[in-house]
Amino acid sequence: MRAAILAVGSELLGPERLDTNSLLLARQLESHGLTLCRKAVVGDEVEEIGPLLVELFATAELVLVTGGLGPTADDLTRQAAASALGRGLSERAEIVAEIEAKFASFGMRMPAVNRRQAEVIDDAVVLANHRGTAPGLRVDHERGTLFLFPGVPHELAAMVDSALVPWLESRGSRPLETRLFKVACLPESTAEETLAPAYAEFGAEAIALLASAGELRVRLTARGGAAGPGGLDRLERRVAELMGDAVFTRRSEETLEAVVGGLLGAAGRTVATAESCTGGLVAERLTRVAGSSAWFVGAVVTYADRLKVELLGVDERLLERHGAVSREVAEAMASGARRRLASDYGVAITGIAGPGGGSEEKPVGTVHVALAGPADGSPTHRRLRLPGDRERVRRLTGQWALDLLRRQLLDEVGDPPPA
Amino acid sequence: MRAAILAVGSELLGPERLDTNSLLLARQLESHGLTLCRKAVVGDEVEEIGPLLVELFATAELVLVTGGLGPTADDLTRQAAASALGRGLSERAEIVAEIEAKFASFGMRMPAVNRRQAEVIDDAVVLANHRGTAPGLRVDHERGTLFLFPGVPHELAAMVDSALVPWLESRGSRPLETRLFKVACLPESTAEETLAPAYAEFGAEAIALLASAGELRVRLTARGGAAGPGGLDRLERRVAELMGDAVFTRRSEETLEAVVGGLLGAAGRTVATAESCTGGLVAERLTRVAGSSAWFVGAVVTYADRLKVELLGVDERLLERHGAVSREVAEAMASGARRRLASDYGVAITGIAGPGGGSEEKPVGTVHVALAGPADGSPTHRRLRLPGDRERVRRLTGQWALDLLRRQLLDEVGDPPPA
Repeated sequence: MRAAILAVGSELLGPERLDTNSLLLARQLESHGLTLCRKAVVGDEVEEIGPLLVELFATAELVLVTGGLGPTADDLTRQAAASALGRGLSERAEIVAEIEAKFASFGMRMPAVNRRQAEVIDDAVVLANHRGTAPGLRVDHERGTLFLFPGVPHELAAMVDSALVPWLESRGSRPLETRLFKVACLPESTAEETLAPAYAEFGAEAIALLASAGELRVRLTARGGAAGPGGLDRLERRVAELMGDAVFTRRSEETLEAVVGGLLGAAGRTVATAESCTGGLVAERLTRVAGSSAWFVGAVVTYADRLKVELLGVDERLLERHGAVSREVAEAMASGARRRLASDYGVAITGIAGPGGGSEEKPVGTVHVALAGPADGSPTHRRLRLPGDRERVRRLTGQWALDLLRRQLLDEVGDPPPA
Repeated sequence: MRAAILAVGSELLGPERLDTNSLLLARQLESHGLTLCRKAVVGDEVEEIGPLLVELFATAELVLVTGGLGPTADDLTRQAAASALGRGLSERAEIVAEIEAKFASFGMRMPAVNRRQAEVIDDAVVLANHRGTAPGLRVDHERGTLFLFPGVPHELAAMVDSALVPWLESRGSRPLETRLFKVACLPESTAEETLAPAYAEFGAEAIALLASAGELRVRLTARGGAAGPGGLDRLERRVAELMGDAVFTRRSEETLEAVVGGLLGAAGRTVATAESCTGGLVAERLTRVAGSSAWFVGAVVTYADRLKVELLGVDERLLERHGAVSREVAEAMASGARRRLASDYGVAITGIAGPGGGSEEKPVGTVHVALAGPADGSPTHRRLRLPGDRERVRRLTGQWALDLLRRQLLDEVGDPPPA
């Protein structure tokens, strides 16, 4: 069964608000194995809502609408749906009484405008609203099924549980199985090349890549060549082989900093950062993790070069000879952070985030990341040439620094327990 | 002219991602006086995208599409648009060469898949992408105008400025007049009380409050009592009077950290931060501002208490007597940051962000912020009791710390030049 979601509300067409209700509905559709083929947003106007509903039923058999069930003159969803389906709309005395009772329970008289909320499309099923005054409606008709839900998120959430989920379950739809891998610092095109054998074997349909700055989600679904019994498990094993330790987690909500923290905690190791162009971004990310005080010691942000000398003990001659943005200074910062802040690992970053400060030799996006650790030998170092603006360079640098630490911890500590 | 926005991407139909790009486009449409009549989201499938484009052109003359211009097999927007418009699609050698050059500038070979990005719909105008590889397209046809933009937000933002805005301006559309005030650390209900006289005089229609964590936008439009000539100017003056120096900017895109940086720069002063529970968040925000090296010296994140002593010179007895989360330690950290990092101002934060670490006397959300400055006397101090989870407590703390510094700078330096 194909489904569509429609959010009604002129405020959702402005520059400030998004239709977040659709995420909740999409989750229910996905977990019940329905295909969401389209989402739409439209303003509070009968002549916009009605025709759009007709269009949506031309492509989907299930249409879930949120919003426009309120008491005011611009709440027109009921009216528009009735006209789109060619049905009548009439006030139900028992719903008026219920709404009056809800107001009375707060010691209030029902405002006259709320009578609108008691209007019901002919032959619709009324869906109780336990958290507000506007009941929802379900209409079964020749083209499919229409649900009208309130737009207030907590009212919607309750009605999804009490009305939509039971209806989906009564139709016996099978949930869609999925698997996820999250990868840092791998461009989408490189990932696609790496995964070529899996595409060849299982088809593009089963593998979706979702890229955001410095992070890639590889989402596998039981479709195409991964459809049959055990197909998704085989695909998952194949992708795990191909991606290797580029994968930092398989949990949707787990962040790179949380994985790094988990590895540090498991190893009983601590970390400190010394940051220049990222200005504390890596420290800020590490301390987002609840309980980070167990393995995060502190950080020094040395924006002024003299602080690299004073707080981290970087040799002034290195700064003079190689400049602040250099391998030598990054390595000295990493060792200095480890020593001065007394941590097991020291992560250092120095670079040019832009927009100013670039040169021909060291253009904007040139970043040196270094990692000093408890093992013998000189710090690990990466020279990066990152694309994008200041924000993006800083974000990507953070990903590289955290992923460098993660890989080092894997080498020294061994694999984390499977998710 | 009526406009519609279409976001292409199967991931936008799942339970994780929203089409945030449409906000940027909606802002441009609104500010150029165009009516956005519909937004839509569709998956990466030619047979879904094409018919939807045809439907959108039945209701709108301008259709803005984002996403699906990438190099991979599931990037199908170009192909779907060509077939919906009944036009051909062909590879352009000069665009292939440009994409190759972009890869070469990062020392990389262009993957073969990227050739797809050089395909152009017949008679389309090619829109340069200065931040990525996929060019955009503009197609003028009998039903209206179609723009195809990349879905990567920073690529889209650049292309909106370089291609969409000039096109809108060339059509001479009249913008809806609006005014904006941004305020930090003021709850919505307090703002509403403060603005009561403006509501009474101009009506609720003209004044919109949009709250997010620690920041409130007051948006005025020429509606209701502010309609007519000069009405919006009168409303703006009234709101400016009522809000006073709670307003940190009137520019939509200007952040609190940028305002603080502007005041520091104008005064020729510098700042350093000493952070505990925020883990470098304030330093990270200040260094987001391009050119911050002129007034940001550095920061020390003292997560481990011993670093408060070693790096900031906090007296150990203060820690023992009052605990790390106390006015006394916050003030000593602020003075220590100023002295050890040699800046004019020192901002210090110590608190309990949670979820652990709270006690009856000092529950989660207890935060002390202190500010030491060049003026005589002891540091300025605020004790906060902030609501919400770890993330929200850290975010709100950052707002309070930056706003405290802003107000101090206003006192010492005087008003900034009008926006």
